[in-house]
This record gives sequence, C-alpha cells and structure tokens, in this order.
Amino acid sequence: MYDGIVQELIDELGRLPGIGPKSAQRIAFHILQTPTFDVSRLSQLLGEVRERVKFCEICGNVSEQERCAICRDPRRNPEIICVVEDAKDVSAIERTREFRGLYHVLGGAISPIGGVGPDDLRIAQLMQRLADGTVQEVILATNPNLEGEATAAYLSRLLTTMQITVSRLASGLPVGGDLEYADEVTLGRAFEGRRRL
Amino acid sequence: MYDGIVQELIDELGRLPGIGPKSAQRIAFHILQTPTFDVSRLSQLLGEVRERVKFCEICGNVSEQERCAICRDPRRNPEIICVVEDAKDVSAIERTREFRGLYHVLGGAISPIGGVGPDDLRIAQLMQRLADGTVQEVILATNPNLEGEATAAYLSRLLTTMQITVSRLASGLPVGGDLEYADEVTLGRAFEGRRRL
Repeated sequence: MYDGIVQELIDELGRLPGIGPKSAQRIAFHILQTPTFDVSRLSQLLGEVRERVKFCEICGNVSEQERCAICRDPRRNPEIICVVEDAKDVSAIERTREFRGLYHVLGGAISPIGGVGPDDLRIAQLMQRLADGTVQEVILATNPNLEGEATAAYLSRLLTTMQITVSRLASGLPVGGDLEYADEVTLGRAFEGRRRL
Repeated sequence: MYDGIVQELIDELGRLPGIGPKSAQRIAFHILQTPTFDVSRLSQLLGEVRERVKFCEICGNVSEQERCAICRDPRRNPEIICVVEDAKDVSAIERTREFRGLYHVLGGAISPIGGVGPDDLRIAQLMQRLADGTVQEVILATNPNLEGEATAAYLSRLLTTMQITVSRLASGLPVGGDLEYADEVTLGRAFEGRRRL
C-alpha cells in the first residue's frame, strides 16, 4: 500500500482489462519516475476520447464523424459487406489489405449463456443495408468460436431468401481463437479461401 | 489503424511498460465501450500524480509530504534501516509485516553495464543517516541478482569500519529474480533468516 494518490492511480490502472496489481504498480512507477513519459498527453486523450469518438451510423465502426473513413471512401466496393463482431476486427482485417468492400459491425455475437440474442446485435441495420439490392455478397467474418459460428449460422439462414452470395472466412483461423489476435498472413489467406454457405 | 484520437490513445497506452499494441488496443476499446469505467477519474489522477507525489527527503520513498508515512511514524524502530533498490520494494516488504524499522531507497543498483555507479545511488545520504550513531543494524535488501549482490557487497565493505551490524536477506528468495515479485511468505522468511555479513 502506498500513500494516497499513488495507490489510487494503481487501483484505477488495475481496473483496465489485462492489468493486474503488479502491472498496475509497474506502470504507476514508470509514470512517476520517467520524466520523458508525456503523462499530460495520455491524461488529455483519456479525458477526450469518449466525447470525440462516435460509432459510424452506417456500419457501426468507430469514427470521429457521423460516418467512418471506410464508409466515406468512394473507392471501396459497396457490393461486398464483411460482417464482423467488433470494431477491433475491422482494424485486423484492414491490416491484411485483402478486402476492399465495406463492413458491418454487429457489436457482439449471439450467446445464450451471455444473454445476448439476435435483437441485441445490429442485425436489423444490416438487413436494412441489404434491402436496396446493391450488395451482391455478404462475408460472415464472426469469430471462429462457438458464439461466432452460431451467429454466422443464424445470419446465413436469414439471408437464404435474398439474391445474395453468403460466404464464411476459410478455416485456417485457429478454431476456438479470437479473430483480432490472428496474424496478417493467416487472416489474409482465410479471406482468399472463403467458402460459400 | 483507426481514425485520429483512437489511434493516438492506442499509441500512448503502448508506451507504458508491459503494454504491447494488442493490449493497448484492448484497453482503448474497453475505455470506449464500457460506460461504467470512470475514465475521467483515471485521466485526473494521471494529470495530478506527478505534481502531488514527492520523494521522502529522508529515505527516498514515495510520499505526498516532505517526509513519508513510515519516516513520520513514531512507532517505527529508528535503530534498524532496511536498504532497498526501489520504492516498490518498500511496499513489498511492508506487506510481509515482518519489519518495523525504517527504510532507505537507493534508487537503483550498481551496474557497470547499465552505467550506474555508487555515486548515482543515494549512498551518501545513507552514510549521513548512519553518522549520529542511532542506527544499530543495516539490512541490505537489494535484489538477489548480479547488480543487487554487487551493491550489497559494496555497501557491506563501506560499513565495516562502523559499529553497525550489517545483514543481508536470507536466501530463500529465488536467485536471479526480482524482489518486488516475491510472495509475502517467502519474503517474510527471508527477513527472519537474515544472516550477518
């Protein structure tokens, strides 16, 4: 235990995901003892980030404007939509440079145990985007785990009646894993080898 | 890569020790997407911590006042001083509740490779504290690794001419490790079994 504010800082840092008490202490002392670390910059960013960041009104990706940089980009192919669970997955796929279409962020996956049903996800918004007939293909890029597969199966059934090609990322992604931790090459290959459902 | 401020926050978080790009991204999204996380509190603490925290003018421990809580406590035994490398080590030893004396924080350990010599540590301040004859025992609790042992050996030689018992924490601490990561029991036993030098 430390005097006042040092312990408070350690406690607050310890509330962040993946930061245990020892890491929190190490970070707090780094901040205290490293004059070159620009603590005011981090403090300011933390203070502003929630106010400045919105979620794209079209795809649900993070954005500082009403529409995200990808939805605003006229060079992106509006005929293909890649459906992902989370905004972090958009970033992971963008790093592969394999995909030039648009995205749709569901905001999670169907999970009966976690109490997440289809109505808790941005599925109605997806159906709305598909209604005008522009989109020719939907790639289901939910995580290759139980919840992600269930969500892909649900969406696949929902889309059978429409004139849209539905595909799923190729296996090659380690099953049971998290899409956001895949390396660029594996994720790129999974895109190339995507199979029709 | 993300739009503006989100990427800036990820980059800043990634400068903290032990936080890689993936962890930084995970933390940034946690901050963005968890309404219950009090981001303004963390932001405020980061902004204030360096201004409010000083180092104790006697022992070098972290403190919000000129003198730390341990040096101010009249119940602590002023005849024993425990010499540690870092303020983090004070906290680790306090958790054992084995030690009721005072501390002296060196601010590091002698390391020819790291370019740290005796003059870079708070050794002169230690000698000054020992000058008035109050202190009967000095416990050398530097880390049980190369630099810590070298520092203990150096201090031990320096103190031979004085009428002071010099001891070193018992082995029992895993050699090559870091004192701050030892568990309470191990560290407590190391205190009990300290040997004279």
